[in-house]
Amino acid sequence: MDEKFMELAIELAKRGEGKVNPNPMVGAVIVKDGIIIGEGYHEKYGEGHAEVNAFESLKEDPSGATMYVTLEPCSHYGKTPPCVDKIIQSKIKRVVIGMIDPNPLVAGNGVDKLKRAGIEVKVGVLEDKCKKLNEIFIKYILTKKPYVVLKTAMSLDGKIATRNGESKWISSEKSRLQVHNLRNKFSAIMVGVNTVIKDNPELTCRIKNGNDPIRIIVDSTLRIPINSKVLQNKDNKTIIATTKRASINSMQELLKKNIKVIIIDEKNGQVDLNALIKKLGELGIDSILLEGGSTLNYSALEENIVDKVMIYIAPKIIGGESSKTPVGGRGIDKLKDAFKLKNIAINILDEDILVEGYID
Amino acid sequence: MDEKFMELAIELAKRGEGKVNPNPMVGAVIVKDGIIIGEGYHEKYGEGHAEVNAFESLKEDPSGATMYVTLEPCSHYGKTPPCVDKIIQSKIKRVVIGMIDPNPLVAGNGVDKLKRAGIEVKVGVLEDKCKKLNEIFIKYILTKKPYVVLKTAMSLDGKIATRNGESKWISSEKSRLQVHNLRNKFSAIMVGVNTVIKDNPELTCRIKNGNDPIRIIVDSTLRIPINSKVLQNKDNKTIIATTKRASINSMQELLKKNIKVIIIDEKNGQVDLNALIKKLGELGIDSILLEGGSTLNYSALEENIVDKVMIYIAPKIIGGESSKTPVGGRGIDKLKDAFKLKNIAINILDEDILVEGYID
Repeated sequence: MDEKFMELAIELAKRGEGKVNPNPMVGAVIVKDGIIIGEGYHEKYGEGHAEVNAFESLKEDPSGATMYVTLEPCSHYGKTPPCVDKIIQSKIKRVVIGMIDPNPLVAGNGVDKLKRAGIEVKVGVLEDKCKKLNEIFIKYILTKKPYVVLKTAMSLDGKIATRNGESKWISSEKSRLQVHNLRNKFSAIMVGVNTVIKDNPELTCRIKNGNDPIRIIVDSTLRIPINSKVLQNKDNKTIIATTKRASINSMQELLKKNIKVIIIDEKNGQVDLNALIKKLGELGIDSILLEGGSTLNYSALEENIVDKVMIYIAPKIIGGESSKTPVGGRGIDKLKDAFKLKNIAINILDEDILVEGYID
Repeated sequence: MDEKFMELAIELAKRGEGKVNPNPMVGAVIVKDGIIIGEGYHEKYGEGHAEVNAFESLKEDPSGATMYVTLEPCSHYGKTPPCVDKIIQSKIKRVVIGMIDPNPLVAGNGVDKLKRAGIEVKVGVLEDKCKKLNEIFIKYILTKKPYVVLKTAMSLDGKIATRNGESKWISSEKSRLQVHNLRNKFSAIMVGVNTVIKDNPELTCRIKNGNDPIRIIVDSTLRIPINSKVLQNKDNKTIIATTKRASINSMQELLKKNIKVIIIDEKNGQVDLNALIKKLGELGIDSILLEGGSTLNYSALEENIVDKVMIYIAPKIIGGESSKTPVGGRGIDKLKDAFKLKNIAINILDEDILVEGYID
């Protein structure tokens, strides 16, 4: 039964997707005598925690009830008072927790405080699911660097475009819709300037009520055409990452358009991706969907900034000695040095196959 | 119940895999009062049909029984007398058939003859499975051309080797074992001469009691090194397909080693693959596992000789602008001209993913 209610709490938590970053998604359910009497989730960054929202939904006295919550309740004063105090006051008898909060400010202190108040605590119910739910939060809270997902769409023979560069659209409508859902979930999208020059994308989230992510363009020498679509948007959400090799003129032109330009250290004549990631973390960006071309994708893997890979594979063959592939660059020399993926998951989206994996 | 016994007949049929080509794999089960009283399958090319073997296994009188057979029983004199006569004589009451024999010499005649003898006939039980079982036979009997499966192993970013050409081994042990099982099932393997020069493979089937397939090397100008492993085997199973551009000297050297050399018309300076396929069909080759490199694979697709594609995908990333991909060559120009695959099936083999599909 604990699993069943935790499953529900996880489903509730997911409703906060794209709205709570860089906070975790959290869901809570209050059950008394086997009946759900309250539920809530963290709805928006800066607003009430899941536990508080669950208490607010109550129509009856929770004393003696069990609370199911996907993440350890907080024990510190943040934007809101500690949830553990609220739980103790409410006379909840038992608290079932999905996972310990990795935030060093909590990290077991919530559980300790509940136990000291005589509340029965069970930790680790559907723990793997709860961790997957908040893989972004876990990395960001522990490293202050954004969680990076390399996403690409290719043919079954590993091409992201034809020899002529035609790439619209390799993947199915369902796959493309899912990518817009991802853009809603991630704080930022990152592409290289070559993708901007070649495809002139908008890099927005086209789902209803979706959040447009921050657009990060990696452009070591500011080659970006000033009339690019990503520079026309007035939402103040475009960041150009460049180096001091960029011309002052180009920089001033961009600043005139209210585009943020950040100057990052060089590495091999390019933007140092590790320095960039660190900087973006400092700016509060917890998650990046890397939709780079062949070259940027390889650099990101080589620089070890990628956490997860999502590859949409369309059941078609394009061929071509010179057609672009999802990961280009120099490439590894020896098979033993390949970037290995673990915890592979496969999903079917219409005719496409989505393969997800984590960098080992 | 009919499905259950047909399933068993299919399983029996599969035991003939690799031993009956270019005949179909066929299985038969005889059931009386719900009890299996006989079973058999076509075990070896030129020997007894499944129905005959099922009759031979009987320990009791089959009169009034039902026979389940994956393929319509033959009605003509081939290497053995017609099975329908044997069924009629045996006083079988009912015959359940997976699929009609596409062989124009049978094609419904077997069913007609059984019906005229007063036997109840049901056709089409697990028909799709029976057709899949004999996809090679169906193509070969109708076109006299071999069934061609393009098989390749690549990384998740679509590379068949590192930039240095290292390709051993991209795929898992389980995938490689499955390929040896395929080699046992197919009459022939086909590669390009570049693969022979680069990898010097043996192209044998390394499973116990497996059949070595015929090795077909496409080599338009006879560049094959005379000390290649594929030329050392004394089994008389290597065929070199070349054009009249090849030197007489090279040809004589090969003939001295008892290697078959066939001269095929040219197309764009290369072996005309359609002419080659036709010729191989005439030589009795019903199935080819195409284990080509990048260039031959594209030519085969372009020349429309491929029936099915099997791609083993290893969960690793190799990268490299210049690393080889499974399908190279010129490549298509427009996405709408991509080679589309249908009836996609996905299998997991240890960590690898096998994607199978049929050329649309």
